[in-house]
Amino acid sequence: MAGKKGLFLGVDLGGTNIQAAAVRKGKILISKKTSTQANKGAEVVIDRIEKVLRQVMDKVDKSPGDFKALCIGAPGAVNLETGMVNEAPNLDWINVPLGKELEARLDLPVFVDNDVNVGTAGEHAYGAGRGAQHMVGIFVGTGIGGGVIINDQLHYGGRGAAGEIGHMVIVPNGRLCGCGKKGCLEAYASKTGIAASIREQISLGRDSYLKKALKRKGKPPLSSSLIEEALIAGDPVTIEAIKDAQFYLGLQTANLVNTLDPNIIVFGGGLVEQLGKDFLKPIKKTAKKYYLQQKHTNRIQIVPAALGDDAGTIGAAVVAQLRHQSNQ
Amino acid sequence: MAGKKGLFLGVDLGGTNIQAAAVRKGKILISKKTSTQANKGAEVVIDRIEKVLRQVMDKVDKSPGDFKALCIGAPGAVNLETGMVNEAPNLDWINVPLGKELEARLDLPVFVDNDVNVGTAGEHAYGAGRGAQHMVGIFVGTGIGGGVIINDQLHYGGRGAAGEIGHMVIVPNGRLCGCGKKGCLEAYASKTGIAASIREQISLGRDSYLKKALKRKGKPPLSSSLIEEALIAGDPVTIEAIKDAQFYLGLQTANLVNTLDPNIIVFGGGLVEQLGKDFLKPIKKTAKKYYLQQKHTNRIQIVPAALGDDAGTIGAAVVAQLRHQSNQ
Repeated sequence: MAGKKGLFLGVDLGGTNIQAAAVRKGKILISKKTSTQANKGAEVVIDRIEKVLRQVMDKVDKSPGDFKALCIGAPGAVNLETGMVNEAPNLDWINVPLGKELEARLDLPVFVDNDVNVGTAGEHAYGAGRGAQHMVGIFVGTGIGGGVIINDQLHYGGRGAAGEIGHMVIVPNGRLCGCGKKGCLEAYASKTGIAASIREQISLGRDSYLKKALKRKGKPPLSSSLIEEALIAGDPVTIEAIKDAQFYLGLQTANLVNTLDPNIIVFGGGLVEQLGKDFLKPIKKTAKKYYLQQKHTNRIQIVPAALGDDAGTIGAAVVAQLRHQSNQ
Repeated sequence: MAGKKGLFLGVDLGGTNIQAAAVRKGKILISKKTSTQANKGAEVVIDRIEKVLRQVMDKVDKSPGDFKALCIGAPGAVNLETGMVNEAPNLDWINVPLGKELEARLDLPVFVDNDVNVGTAGEHAYGAGRGAQHMVGIFVGTGIGGGVIINDQLHYGGRGAAGEIGHMVIVPNGRLCGCGKKGCLEAYASKTGIAASIREQISLGRDSYLKKALKRKGKPPLSSSLIEEALIAGDPVTIEAIKDAQFYLGLQTANLVNTLDPNIIVFGGGLVEQLGKDFLKPIKKTAKKYYLQQKHTNRIQIVPAALGDDAGTIGAAVVAQLRHQSNQ
């Protein structure tokens, strides 16, 4: 039994796929993936989470008792205490009691958290943010999510609503965001925002490598690989849109540095993974220019995430461990 | 001696006045004020701090040993560990070893901190933020300063540079700020920013109640009472400038809520004290509109500071106590 100490389960629940893993000290022992099938309703999704978890548990050990706790990173607003998913637009969920449901089925402590918080915790414990006392995670994909670590702990805030960096306003009365408000960072610097920038130029009569792709319907409007393709092809409209995104990400990074003075800002998410380190260079340059205190700016690191697709499951296992321990 | 337990000294070092107080449990026992005379150089200012402190100590008790520690809130960037004031523009100080100098003269532990951090700590311990786990302090005067409390503790960040809320960019490529960067909150919503807004309108040919006052030279460009006078007189240009300031303060408050989800945001500083609660109403309205999570927004309070002029000395005594205890 001693060898099984510290064995935790992490689930990354996404709009398209469910990934589950058994994790010990930040190392994945077994990982399994299945499709989410959110269109079939919450009950089916929960069945699928249970199924994939049982596959993982069976592969590692016959006894479920060896697993200390499970955490699920869900794409939306969650109630940390009850394990309720209050709202998850990608799943079309409103008030789904995910934690309670799985706890009844699996007979182990189940925690539910926001997927970006979980990713931030993973990067902090075992990824690019390792050893940093204060960290901000910024994840750029279809939207922009964030997480804040203060004194080595995830900062949830008074309502559990902290870390919504994508919805900091950067352009007052600016472009309409998917959240219904105007001028959010997400409306300019996410894939959705970049698509909007390109569409604006097309509507002004300019041509773009991505014109055809943007006529197709569906979400996300552009894939990260398609954006990279347009950049490699030298499409001026895409290049400009990316430059704008980087400028706004740089300003908001400086805003976070001027407010929180973290040791490190970790950039992750699909777009950052696709475009690599070069994507961060202009962000760093703008951010540095806007730091109020120009002393010891070499102590502020801006780096790409290190865990890639595994951040979700590893991070969920990290949160499972932290919350399990603090409950004991 | 037991009765003297928990007796701390707090100094509020400003560009115009030095205020020193003996404080026990947030209550001022004796407070003394003197002019700073910064134009005579750092040595003279330190002499004056020592003198006013000795006056305070003499009034409370003959024995300096009864005082546990002293903290000075300085108007600028400080090194928390060495007590060095790195830069204080209002005093014209660069690298003044304030803490070491006073420690040698007074024979008690001396801590130096930023004046706004100290004010935030005071409001948190004994003022409007009492009992809040997470708090943001925003102080609107000639400039805009801020302080962040996370888990009941002042958040300093990796370089001790956290809390610079006045230098969060709110208008990309916007108006030039006194810090040399463009579009900072301070450039729009401080007294300096409000003066700039009014000047812009005058330069466009509009008249203003404050036209004459703005022609005078010197800092600050406008006093809080003069701004109130113009509002009472119904000056449209001043009314517009205040509305703009409130809009930007509201947006930045929402940005801080979306990032940190504090329980309370405390607004202090000369302008807020002068204009009172009514000044906060439009700020609250804008902020609330821009919260991403609209659940439990009644749990987020936006309130005026409670300690007024005493926030500096009480807050400094609070920081003296906290840092003295954590050193033991």
